[in-house]
Amino acid sequence: MSSLRDAAIARDVADPLARFRAAFSLPAGVIYLNGNSLGPPPGTALASLAAVATEEWGQGLIGSWNSAGWIEAPTRIGDKIARLIGAKAGEVVVADSTSVNLFKLAAGALSLRPGRRTILSEVGNFPTDLYVLQGLSALTPGQARLKAVAPEALIEAIDADVAVVVLTQVHYKSSRRWDMAAVTAAAHAKGALILWDLSHSTGAVAVDLGACRADLAIGCGYKYLNGGPGAPAYLFVAQRHQQAIRSPLTGWMGHAEPFAFDDDYRPAPDIRAQVTGTPPILGLAALEAGVDLQLEADPAQVEAKGAALAEAFRAAVSPRLEARGLDLASPAAAADRGLHLAFRHPAAYAIVRAMAARGVIGDFRAPDAARFGFSPLFLSYLDIHNAAEHFVEVVESGEFNRPEHQVRAAVT
Amino acid sequence: MSSLRDAAIARDVADPLARFRAAFSLPAGVIYLNGNSLGPPPGTALASLAAVATEEWGQGLIGSWNSAGWIEAPTRIGDKIARLIGAKAGEVVVADSTSVNLFKLAAGALSLRPGRRTILSEVGNFPTDLYVLQGLSALTPGQARLKAVAPEALIEAIDADVAVVVLTQVHYKSSRRWDMAAVTAAAHAKGALILWDLSHSTGAVAVDLGACRADLAIGCGYKYLNGGPGAPAYLFVAQRHQQAIRSPLTGWMGHAEPFAFDDDYRPAPDIRAQVTGTPPILGLAALEAGVDLQLEADPAQVEAKGAALAEAFRAAVSPRLEARGLDLASPAAAADRGLHLAFRHPAAYAIVRAMAARGVIGDFRAPDAARFGFSPLFLSYLDIHNAAEHFVEVVESGEFNRPEHQVRAAVT
Repeated sequence: MSSLRDAAIARDVADPLARFRAAFSLPAGVIYLNGNSLGPPPGTALASLAAVATEEWGQGLIGSWNSAGWIEAPTRIGDKIARLIGAKAGEVVVADSTSVNLFKLAAGALSLRPGRRTILSEVGNFPTDLYVLQGLSALTPGQARLKAVAPEALIEAIDADVAVVVLTQVHYKSSRRWDMAAVTAAAHAKGALILWDLSHSTGAVAVDLGACRADLAIGCGYKYLNGGPGAPAYLFVAQRHQQAIRSPLTGWMGHAEPFAFDDDYRPAPDIRAQVTGTPPILGLAALEAGVDLQLEADPAQVEAKGAALAEAFRAAVSPRLEARGLDLASPAAAADRGLHLAFRHPAAYAIVRAMAARGVIGDFRAPDAARFGFSPLFLSYLDIHNAAEHFVEVVESGEFNRPEHQVRAAVT
Repeated sequence: MSSLRDAAIARDVADPLARFRAAFSLPAGVIYLNGNSLGPPPGTALASLAAVATEEWGQGLIGSWNSAGWIEAPTRIGDKIARLIGAKAGEVVVADSTSVNLFKLAAGALSLRPGRRTILSEVGNFPTDLYVLQGLSALTPGQARLKAVAPEALIEAIDADVAVVVLTQVHYKSSRRWDMAAVTAAAHAKGALILWDLSHSTGAVAVDLGACRADLAIGCGYKYLNGGPGAPAYLFVAQRHQQAIRSPLTGWMGHAEPFAFDDDYRPAPDIRAQVTGTPPILGLAALEAGVDLQLEADPAQVEAKGAALAEAFRAAVSPRLEARGLDLASPAAAADRGLHLAFRHPAAYAIVRAMAARGVIGDFRAPDAARFGFSPLFLSYLDIHNAAEHFVEVVESGEFNRPEHQVRAAVT
């Protein structure tokens, strides 16, 4: 055992991303394997938030919309996120939530493919994605209908009525990763557009929307980007679609001249047309710090380290717990998955709680998955070694059976 | 002049709301007449934001969704705002932006009045309101059409095809105030619903949605509620409509059981069905502090003081500047307006800039309005006396003609 521990320490010594750990101040005694759900704050995010609130809001007041660059924050931060996902400046903007952005871009995709009505997705996609597409279909009967098929039937289901294929690149539960280039090409071959949900990708696995010729994308700010709880989300519209796409949520910040106060909506001629209401400056301040930190890291190193952490965890846990009813619910090969792992077990909820009581934070995803994320910026190989040992002890000892670990919380 | 100054000081001594000024730390040398656009931070907002970021996010991490009450924040703060607008607990929730909330409730109103297609509003309403309704109409042709009429023709225009009347109670530019009870009754008399935009009302003028039997309302967190730049917005759905109304933006946080991760959307049976994405916790923290402060003040005293401040300003300015081309663009009677005033002048933009250079912050609204807000919690009668003197001096001296005051900023 100690030799495995020594090996983990040796890998930490050689880790080119090791310096990023100091950018976070995680609580003592915690191994945080849930950065895929809510990333922890970089110290710079806390400092920026305090400065924006106290100085820009408190002292600059209304003038900060100009003097502190608030009005450009959605496009400025969008341009930064663009660099993380293979997009060009002017193709990404920060606005609203992931759910609202999906609504905008799915409706926008229908506007780009008149005559086609089907929005194609997969069963078991992240619920909000399916819910939002169901809501759009219910609002516009005859114009849009959601068709959700099993993932293995998806490519086959792209037909001449499909306006847009909506997929989460890395599955929120299983971590299964779609081949972005191949699926994008398959959609295009049938005249359909592709809309990628990058919530579990950005800041985790290398993404190159431009190289794939992806059309549309959305993503979340509070996972691997460490942008804060409920951080503003982002969206991508390939430049070639920006003139024609129509947003259904035509708020004043998407107007060509918001401060002309015209009665009639005229969309901004660029990505700003996808902004809706007044930008949420406090949330944007924290998000920008998270994005700035992410930009300092080499994306290839990020993906490689995350995959190595996940694989180290899997290798330490799976062989010892398979006989105890624990199944890997994620693809076996690192190339087929993102940077989290899910394990199926009938007592997954209680196992997650028992591990949390030991300071190892993962989460539960109904009905039976224990999920652990391997954020490459703040986790060490030694963390993973220790977390795996806790996991094995919790399951082997039956510690998870204690009554206090069965109590359900509102948020799981 | 000095007797007027003494009178202002005497009114401050007698002001029952005077103690609230200490809750804000405004910059020295500034008289801030723009709280109607962006309220300044209460000290408690800055402290709460720091605690939420550093402790709840940084130390509590994902567990704060339960332990710090994050998941209940939209309804908890909604219940507090309900007390400010005459609504019951469970009728208000905080979510998204004002624009997005309008989209949800306007579509929801159509779902409550099947067979009716018209959304009625007034020309010159706050642009985002008209834009969002135009966007909804464009997305659902044949189901929704916006009809915007002159305010004096509005009541007459409520006919049997009108599903919902959408009005901003206090006009963003002129400050003209609709009679909420009378217009609501007129809508109901024709079988239509009413949707009030309270952005310039809440925290300013007394609002009693319940007494008026209003159906729906939306509002903004960053004006008189002092919730921070781009603060989360709120919406109201009268309890009697909550079972039947359908939101078009069916995000996971509006699901009856978000953490069941079902594939099919089932709306929450209450106001939570209007929540869309993950709640923006940092913005909510600041907003809650602003709302908590507002709840400490007597709404009747708030409205009375704001009206008195505005009237003192008007009385000090109008008679002296009418001959200089300055016209009051707001109703003459305090009962007919909210807590801001607009003045029309060909050089309104430059006048606002010249006053800002003297530390008196108002704003410009195209094409020719100088607008000043009279937030009752942090302004004194002496502030108003001094601000009016600056206004008169800037106009009488021609100081606003200086070249530096003509430069247009991105945000006006």
